[in-house]
Formats: sequence, structure tokens, C-alpha cells
Amino acid sequence: MDPKPIDILRERLREASHLGATVALLDWDQEVNMPAKGANARAAAIAYLSAVVHNKFVAIDEDGLLTGLKKLLDNPPADINQALTKREAVIVRETWRSYEKEKKLPETFVKKLAEASSKSQIVWAEARAKNDFALWLPWLEKIIKLKQQEAEYLGYQNSPYDALIDAYEPGMTTAETARVLGELKDFLLPFLRQTKASKTKIETKKILGRFPISQQVTLNKLIAGQMGFDIEAGRLDKSVHPFSTNFHPTDVRMTTRYREDDVLYSIGSTIHETGHALYEQNLPAEDFGTPLAETVSMGIHESQSRLWENNIGQSLPFWQYFYPKLQVAFPKPFKRLKLAKLYQIINKVEPSLVRTEADEVTYNLHIILRFELERALIEGQLEAGELPQAWNTKMKEYLGLEVPNDQLGVLQDIHWAGGDIGYFATYSLGNLYAAQFYQQLRKDLPELDQQIATGDFSKINHWLKQNIHRHGKTYRAGELIKKVTGEELTSRYFIDYLKAKYQKIYNL
Amino acid sequence: MDPKPIDILRERLREASHLGATVALLDWDQEVNMPAKGANARAAAIAYLSAVVHNKFVAIDEDGLLTGLKKLLDNPPADINQALTKREAVIVRETWRSYEKEKKLPETFVKKLAEASSKSQIVWAEARAKNDFALWLPWLEKIIKLKQQEAEYLGYQNSPYDALIDAYEPGMTTAETARVLGELKDFLLPFLRQTKASKTKIETKKILGRFPISQQVTLNKLIAGQMGFDIEAGRLDKSVHPFSTNFHPTDVRMTTRYREDDVLYSIGSTIHETGHALYEQNLPAEDFGTPLAETVSMGIHESQSRLWENNIGQSLPFWQYFYPKLQVAFPKPFKRLKLAKLYQIINKVEPSLVRTEADEVTYNLHIILRFELERALIEGQLEAGELPQAWNTKMKEYLGLEVPNDQLGVLQDIHWAGGDIGYFATYSLGNLYAAQFYQQLRKDLPELDQQIATGDFSKINHWLKQNIHRHGKTYRAGELIKKVTGEELTSRYFIDYLKAKYQKIYNL
Repeated sequence: MDPKPIDILRERLREASHLGATVALLDWDQEVNMPAKGANARAAAIAYLSAVVHNKFVAIDEDGLLTGLKKLLDNPPADINQALTKREAVIVRETWRSYEKEKKLPETFVKKLAEASSKSQIVWAEARAKNDFALWLPWLEKIIKLKQQEAEYLGYQNSPYDALIDAYEPGMTTAETARVLGELKDFLLPFLRQTKASKTKIETKKILGRFPISQQVTLNKLIAGQMGFDIEAGRLDKSVHPFSTNFHPTDVRMTTRYREDDVLYSIGSTIHETGHALYEQNLPAEDFGTPLAETVSMGIHESQSRLWENNIGQSLPFWQYFYPKLQVAFPKPFKRLKLAKLYQIINKVEPSLVRTEADEVTYNLHIILRFELERALIEGQLEAGELPQAWNTKMKEYLGLEVPNDQLGVLQDIHWAGGDIGYFATYSLGNLYAAQFYQQLRKDLPELDQQIATGDFSKINHWLKQNIHRHGKTYRAGELIKKVTGEELTSRYFIDYLKAKYQKIYNL
Repeated sequence: MDPKPIDILRERLREASHLGATVALLDWDQEVNMPAKGANARAAAIAYLSAVVHNKFVAIDEDGLLTGLKKLLDNPPADINQALTKREAVIVRETWRSYEKEKKLPETFVKKLAEASSKSQIVWAEARAKNDFALWLPWLEKIIKLKQQEAEYLGYQNSPYDALIDAYEPGMTTAETARVLGELKDFLLPFLRQTKASKTKIETKKILGRFPISQQVTLNKLIAGQMGFDIEAGRLDKSVHPFSTNFHPTDVRMTTRYREDDVLYSIGSTIHETGHALYEQNLPAEDFGTPLAETVSMGIHESQSRLWENNIGQSLPFWQYFYPKLQVAFPKPFKRLKLAKLYQIINKVEPSLVRTEADEVTYNLHIILRFELERALIEGQLEAGELPQAWNTKMKEYLGLEVPNDQLGVLQDIHWAGGDIGYFATYSLGNLYAAQFYQQLRKDLPELDQQIATGDFSKINHWLKQNIHRHGKTYRAGELIKKVTGEELTSRYFIDYLKAKYQKIYNL
């Protein structure tokens, strides 16, 4: 008997995913292992392989296989045995969606963008080290032009930025993002003023001490494992910028960064990446390659990392459980520091220049700033050369900070250098999704705080897996949040969460 | 102006090499980093990518590009400006050779072999751990059948084994290998008896002590660096089986293995792998992808590792230089051990069951045994099921040892499990090439011993690079040895080397 068309499609998708996973390994290795002199050859390999992945994916329909299945999906036959199952329908629907986008991009363009992104990142790293925006500017201009061109290829309704954000958050639009982030900004700016005005002053975030990195590694592995990360199906390594990636649900890799003088720095990033990694490990391995084993969107992905990092990992119960372990690992610096004080320090609200070090209140202002700027760049209202000035003006306006140099300003993030425009907004969307999921999780698990305080994360994990992870791309982000919480995405839960938490901490 | 056909070929070869390097990374990562549960997904990815590499390479001539260049090579035009340069001619000649072989293998066969090799290795590892040959036997049978089929696809003159050995040692035949290894056997068997009968008895090879692995790592990196390995264009990691691989001359990776109770174990394997790695780092990076930047053969590759490991790394001058460093790193175990004694211990001749632990005299008997057995398997004179018995009989005959179990016998090497049949012989050929190159090196550098004894390896490296490495595949192995040493390959230099060295050590 001939294989069914849906099974042929599954096989083609699996092959495409083997290629995709291989590119992910090239990227991972570049950050974690690659010797310095290997950079150029690696960039060339990644650019070439990116085109191979593109071609493989576009060739999925060269004999009309996918088109045939799409027809079957749109016009289900009367005989139920001939129709697609619900799960098969998801595969066809989501593959069609990706295919329709991907085929609009010419191979030469894919290669050009991959090469430019790769080289731009190298120049950006040098420009950042030298605090020399002008050095990177020509590459930034090239990237913006290419991303505008990408938007034209992909097509859009109102703004070219629509096409770009849709790549990270399928179905999301510029207008909707602007609306949600606008609500958030309207709340955050006065709320930040309130916390600043509070009489409660919290000591410096930094706890003085020496924290040998090998000991930090052990502690971070302990935390990740306790959260449910399966170390036999993944790794935790070091890199300059923490990230997580996956080749398959059985091989999910994350990295964190370490500072000898700050242990909280690595713990926070490990909890964040473990949130991402748990999502990837919980995808159904048997559906590898198909949308059934793919994550919903970057926003939903980020909701998983943020829920763990902030809602759980910066909560009092979490540190009731972990602080004694931290004290055992590093007795000297923590001997005299009370838990209540540590909790305050971890949650201190303090405008800072660097996004990745921001607290929960100011973090989204960093994102809003970037969203507004990148949107203006893509829509042509801002020239790349004007970017540092625009950045600095907004930093003053939103966070009240003077930017002393571009290294601590516009050059701090790799995203734009790598062509990831439309990505930043998903960080804030992730925070909103996280808060909305979290209030539902609290409802469904009334003993949540006790579980966290005793280090029992199994029920949280089970809830996340059942409600979110195991579905893969079965539901779009908008459907998923409604299915799980009964409501569409709103900034209300996040705002309520911040209010409740920080009113207590700052006696507002 | 349109690009020249040779430049189009160069670009296609570069792309194929990016794919090949990516498969090499998948392999490297599997040995060095991959978490246990990722094994199945990785095997599937490697099998799929192997087919992609094959298809890419075979497609090199789909528009007749290579055929056209081959015609140009065979019938050089009168106008010298239209003809291929010498270097271009090498590219066409060697690409044609590989292409002619590769296109004979159907894609389905390439995939099948890759999958079987991968699964067979997994079963072999389990069989070895459980000392259960029968568990692996069906896979061994499958591999032998596939390799016989490969030989039929490739074609051969006298023996199907010709086709297999040619894949590792282009131009080498079964008969020629049998002749050279036969000469070697005729010398080695009586010579081994002589050393056994000698009154000079050397203490155990093992130096008692604890050698913390982190300290061994530092020492091994020091040795590799001193030998000329550029750590900014490569890595040295740990793995169960030491190996070296390269993605590009700017990213050459090697591994070694460590034992807490034996420091000489890791040093020997590091010197060996560094010999391989120097060859790869010295290939001309600007010709990446083309035969000009590829190594000649496995035998020539092995000559580089063996020359460093044995001819240099087990010589007295080498330890005159390194022993004081070893004593500083590990004072206790080496305090009372004299250099002369260490030199004897390192070079002790002692028949052993395990190839990778064999000394210079017995090593080739391990290879001869494997060569004879695998040839018989492929030519159909031996059944896979009879292999353990045949192995044990030969071990008794050549090395005088009883094999207590298959773990220490027929199950010890991964090669057959991975489909590498025809490979073993190149280890012995490597020893012969090494000895022949080394006598020439000694002639060309009269101060060689003093240089080694002062840790100055720069002139050796320069000689190897100038005479061997930089040429890539410009010369076949047979031409190269003649060009460098003025003679065809002979076992004489190796035999003379062993005689001179061991007559001294054992007062023969």
C-alpha cells in the first residue's frame, strides 16, 4: 500500500527539521564552542545551510502534495475515513501557513539576508567593544533595507512592520501591539514615579562576595533540575549571551552567563532559560518535525521563561525554598542577610540603562522604547543615523536616564544586528501572557505557594505541559490564551500582578 | 563577465564542503556534547544529512560542468590562456575521481548504509558493555552485506576489498597491502620473540599516582600548543574515543581521553591527535572545499599522527624536554623516576589484548590481524559468526595471548560497527609512511634531536607543511612519498627504525 499523502508530508517535514536542527547546532556551537578564527567559515556555512533549509521547505509542494492536502482540509470529504483527523488538520493548516510565507522569499534573498546578518553581527560586536556606532551604521542600514524588502515580499495590510512581527508572533499586528503596549506604558510611567517616590528604599542589588564559577554551575544545574529540566535530554553551558535552543525534544540546550562577583545574575538567567527549555522538552517527540511539535509563537515561548523567571522565580515562596541552599553554597556573603531583605533586593525597582538587567517594572519600558524605534525605522519615519539620538531621548523620557555612551545605549542588544526586527515586542507580550496564565495557574492550584515553598514544581510543570506545551501549534496564541484562561490577551493581569507585588514591597 | 567554469566548480565544491563540515559537526557533537537521550534523533539527522551531502556532490555535474572541465583537462587547448592551470588541473582531476565513485552509489543505498552504521554502532556499544557478541552479530552481518554491495556498486579488479580500501587509500589495492603487511609480519613475529627473550626486563608501564584530570588537561594543551597547534583555530576536548575532525582549516577539533591513574595515557593520545590536527590546520584555507585543501589519504593522515606520536613523541630527546615539565606538574609520582627509566617504560614492548594500548612493535600485528579478518569477511571466506573464534586464534598466533572475552577481543573497536571496513590497513601504512618521511626529515634537519630536546618544533612543522600539508591532494600518496623521499613506499625504513631503537632498549 502506498503511503498516505499526510505521511509523506510528515516525512518531508521531518527531513526539513533535521536540516533546521543542524543549523541550530551550527549556531549553538558558534556561541558555546567555536574557536575565534573559525568565525568566517562558520558564517559562510550558516548562510549556505539557511538557503538549503529554505529550498527544502519550499520544495515540499513541488509535486502539489501540500496543495492537495490543503484542498482536503478546506473541502472535507463526506466519508470520514477519507478526511484528515484533527491533528492532521493542524499539520496541514500550519504547514500551509509557513509555506505560503516562505515561498514568497527568493532563495537569493534568503542567502543575502543570512550573510548580511552574520557579517553585521560581527561588525556590531566590534562596534560595541569600541563604542563606535558609526562603524556599524552601514550594516544597520543594509539590514533595515533588507527587512523592508522582506516585508514587501511577504506582503502586509497596513504597515510593513506587520509582516515582520507576524514572523515571530503569528497573527499579531502592529496596531494591536501598539494598543497593548500603549496601555502598559500608560500604567508603567506613573507607577514607576510612585515607586521612586516611595519612602521604602532598598539597598543595592549587588551582594558583595566572590562566587567561584564552578560552584555557581553546580547550583544552577541543581535549580534547573529541580524545576524539571531533564539533563539527560539537554545541556546547560556558558555563553556571553544566555539563550536556549533545541534540536529535538530529546536534545534541548540552554546557556547562562556567569559573573564571579554576582551569583544572582546567573541564577536569574538560568531560571529564565529553563522556562524556555521545559517548553521544548515537553513537546511531543513523536511528532518531531511537524507543527504539532512546534511552539506557538515567540510571545508564548517568552511567557514560559517569564512565568518561571518572574512570577515564580522572584516570588517569596521560591526563595523560602532556595535561599537556604544558596546560603549553604555561599555561607559568607549570605550569613547575615535575612530572607525578607534578599527578597527586596531581588525585586528592587531601579531604572537602568541595560535591558537584560532591568527589573519587572522597568523592563517593559525598555521594550516599548525598542518597539517604537524599530517600527519607525521600518516604516521609514526614522533614519538609522538618527537612532542613537532617538534612543537617548526616549531613555530620558521613559526611564529618566542619561545615556553616557552607545555601548550602554543603542549598541547593547544583538537583535537588530542579526536582523531580528519585530522580535522585541514578543518579550512584553510574553510578560502579559505569563501574568494571565499565572493567575489561572493560581486558581487551578490553590496550594501553589506551599508547593513552591517546598520545592515541589511537579504540579506546575504538569499544568504547563497539559495546558500549553503538549499542544504544539494546535492553537494559535490568541486561541490558546482564551482556551486556558477564558479571556483574550489583556494587560490587566500583568498590571494587577505588578500592583499587588510592588505595593507591598514599596508600601505604596 | 560570466564566471569561469572552474570558478563555478569551486563554488559548488565549497557548498558541498559546508554540508560535509556540518555532518562532521553533528558527529563531533555526538561524541563530545550530546545528551544521552538525543542519540536517536541525532542518528536520524546524520543519516538524512549524509544523503543530502551525497546528492549535492553528485549534482555537481548535472549540467555537465564537470564533464566539460574533464574534457579540457584531457585535451588541453593549444592556447595556454584557455587551458587549466596546474592547480586547477588538480581540482578537476581529483573531483572527477571522487565524483565517478560517488555517482555509482544510489541515494537510497547511501541512506541505508548511514542508518545501518549508526544503529549498528549503538548496538555494538551495548554488546561491548554486556560482552555479548551475539547481540551485535545480526548488525555486523548487515554491515558486511552492505559493504559487499558497496564494492559491487563501485566496481573492482580482483577483490571486492579493493573497492573498500581505495575509499581510504586512493590507488591502494588488496594485493599491494597484503604484500607490504606480509613483509612487516615476517619481520615482526621473530623480532617480537627476540625482545621477549631479552634479559632486559622493563617495569610495568603504569606509573602509580593520582593525576587530577583538570591538571592533565592543562598539560595536554601545553604540549599540543608547543607542537604548533593553534588553539584559536581549534579545540581540545574529552571523549571516550580520541579523534580529530575538521570543519575548516580555521576550526580543527581534537579530543583525548583521560584516566585519573595514568597521565601517559592522555599525553600519548593528545600527541597523536595533534599530529592529525596540524595537517588539517596547515591546509590552504583559501582553497577550502577543493581537493587542494584536502588531505591525501588516511594512510598519509595517519603518518602525520604516528610520526609525532611515535618517532618524535616516544623518543629520548622529546622526553628530555618534556619530562621536567611533567615532574613539575606531578612531583610526587615522578620524583624518584629517572628519565632513562621513564623512556624505557614508555617504550616497553608487551603484547596486549587492546590495539589502542599497544606499543610500536606489537601495534602492527593488531592491524595485520584485522586486515586479514576483514578481507576474508568481505571476500566471503569467513562468516561473521566465525569471527570471534578466528580473532582469538590469530591473537594466540601473533601475540601469544589468550582472549578472555569478546569485550577485550573482537568487540574492542568501533570501526566495523560503523561500516569502516578497509580502514585498519591505513594505520599500518601510516606507520610505514611515517618512518620513511622521518628518515628524510632527519637527513634534511641534521640538528633535529637538539631541536626536539629544546622544545623547538618549528622547523619540523615547517618541513611537514612545506613537503606534505600545503599540497593538499596535489599528489597521490604514492607520488608524494616518492617526491619527498625519492623512493616508493617500503617497509624497510620502519623495520630499520624499530631495529635501531629496540636493539638499544633491549640490548638485542
